[in-house]
Amino acid sequence: MELKAYLKECVALVDAALDHYLPHEEMLPSSLHRAMRYSVFAGGKRIRPVLMMAACQAVGGEREAVLPAACAMEMIHTYSLIHDDLPAMDDDDFRRGRPTNHKVFGEAHAILAGDALLTEAFDLLSRPDVLTGLTADARLRLIHLLARGAGSRGMVAGQVVDMESEGKKIDFPTLEFIHTRKTGALILAAIQAGALIGSADDGAFDRLARYGRAAGLAFQIADDILDIVGDQEVLGKDVGSDQERGKATYPALFGLDEARQRAREMRDVALEALAAFGEEAEPLRLIAHYIVDRSF
Amino acid sequence: MELKAYLKECVALVDAALDHYLPHEEMLPSSLHRAMRYSVFAGGKRIRPVLMMAACQAVGGEREAVLPAACAMEMIHTYSLIHDDLPAMDDDDFRRGRPTNHKVFGEAHAILAGDALLTEAFDLLSRPDVLTGLTADARLRLIHLLARGAGSRGMVAGQVVDMESEGKKIDFPTLEFIHTRKTGALILAAIQAGALIGSADDGAFDRLARYGRAAGLAFQIADDILDIVGDQEVLGKDVGSDQERGKATYPALFGLDEARQRAREMRDVALEALAAFGEEAEPLRLIAHYIVDRSF
Repeated sequence: MELKAYLKECVALVDAALDHYLPHEEMLPSSLHRAMRYSVFAGGKRIRPVLMMAACQAVGGEREAVLPAACAMEMIHTYSLIHDDLPAMDDDDFRRGRPTNHKVFGEAHAILAGDALLTEAFDLLSRPDVLTGLTADARLRLIHLLARGAGSRGMVAGQVVDMESEGKKIDFPTLEFIHTRKTGALILAAIQAGALIGSADDGAFDRLARYGRAAGLAFQIADDILDIVGDQEVLGKDVGSDQERGKATYPALFGLDEARQRAREMRDVALEALAAFGEEAEPLRLIAHYIVDRSF
Repeated sequence: MELKAYLKECVALVDAALDHYLPHEEMLPSSLHRAMRYSVFAGGKRIRPVLMMAACQAVGGEREAVLPAACAMEMIHTYSLIHDDLPAMDDDDFRRGRPTNHKVFGEAHAILAGDALLTEAFDLLSRPDVLTGLTADARLRLIHLLARGAGSRGMVAGQVVDMESEGKKIDFPTLEFIHTRKTGALILAAIQAGALIGSADDGAFDRLARYGRAAGLAFQIADDILDIVGDQEVLGKDVGSDQERGKATYPALFGLDEARQRAREMRDVALEALAAFGEEAEPLRLIAHYIVDRSF
């Protein structure tokens, strides 16, 4: 199978579902719903939804089955980007070549659009007309997975420590704390959600979680490498911005060569976790390669 | 029964439960969990949790049964206050006589503490060890009630339109849009959640929802009146701040006398909705009186 075509299909499915589930711009207040949609449809790679789909397929599920959960995940990811870009946080004017939410809609609307997207994720996950193939118990578990990954024990924790570490010399445990939470927690939750929706047994669930942890780390390290060597198009943000801010990154702590080595190791750990799976885990394997290879 | 004692008992129960369910300050990142706790324990009246308890009791439930949901509700309410106070929003330095979250912890931490509280609410609602007396289906309905009340169709919608109306002459439908959402939506959700947890039948659920809508409006109008005539202690914020900002309020549109008349009418609608209930709805009745009477 060809990864590029697979990704394209997944992104088309997710984009259509997001358009379907997000409140329309005509719904009052229009300014809010316009701001929400602006950032959701700002050209993201949908990596978390794609991972959720691929994990679901790896245990024999249909990738369409995850769509509402994948949309909720993307809403959470998008809210985090909007708030991240705010003047009080990273103060970014552009993301993926487009003006950031607060540059277009103003700070107050950007804060509220982020709040609304985060809330909408849980609204969607608990709607009576979605995810009807799951038991109510499985849906509660799903909600808990996403909330736990996104909250003060997950993504937000990573954000806070990342921010507090700016311009400081940090140690390896702190860097790992940041990595496993800031991006790792949602990537892991995406994989776990896919496994859950695909009715994975405990063994498969654990193996996929192992994949998710390793892939999340590989993704973060590759992103940090790209910030140094990458071209802006691949990365979607300014090259060198991490260094400028004195951000805690793997290459900053260990150098580029060791960072690349570590990314490769994490890719191999991820691939090994899939050893017991057959052909149906091929998308996950290709994604593990893709995540790391783009940083070479 | 005496309302003051009832409120005191409820608040003590909610405060203890919040302390139990919120991540402790020692949990990393401490700065984040400290900021979350600072605003949750900043002397709020816990009106939404109390209404949830009282609604649950009105249909024969135990008030302790709602505690996890009441805490989730208070986390959502608190996040909204933290974000509301931000410089880009209302830019308030004090709330209930204490410095606002961003004055103590900085803007970035305040934004993230709000985000984390909102997420924690859904984390708590979906935890496997709480609300075990409910079916999983009822819990999903509960999550949906709170998300719907808090999101872009509820509280956040009210926030946005309120903000966009500042300094403008607005019409009555716009004022009603703001009132029914900004405070009304969460108050209604609190009542509905209490009814749901108390296993209300459809008729009782609808009657309590009618109470919730009227009480929510009465509460908002009374708050607006207090902003003009009240003393700072009752209100917990600066007197006259709405007028200063050109906020859309009932008294601004119709004058004080008519605002008081309308608050009384809403109180009576709320009381009437309880006509079919017996002694067990007494707390709800006393609260309806209390909400309105404090503005005279």
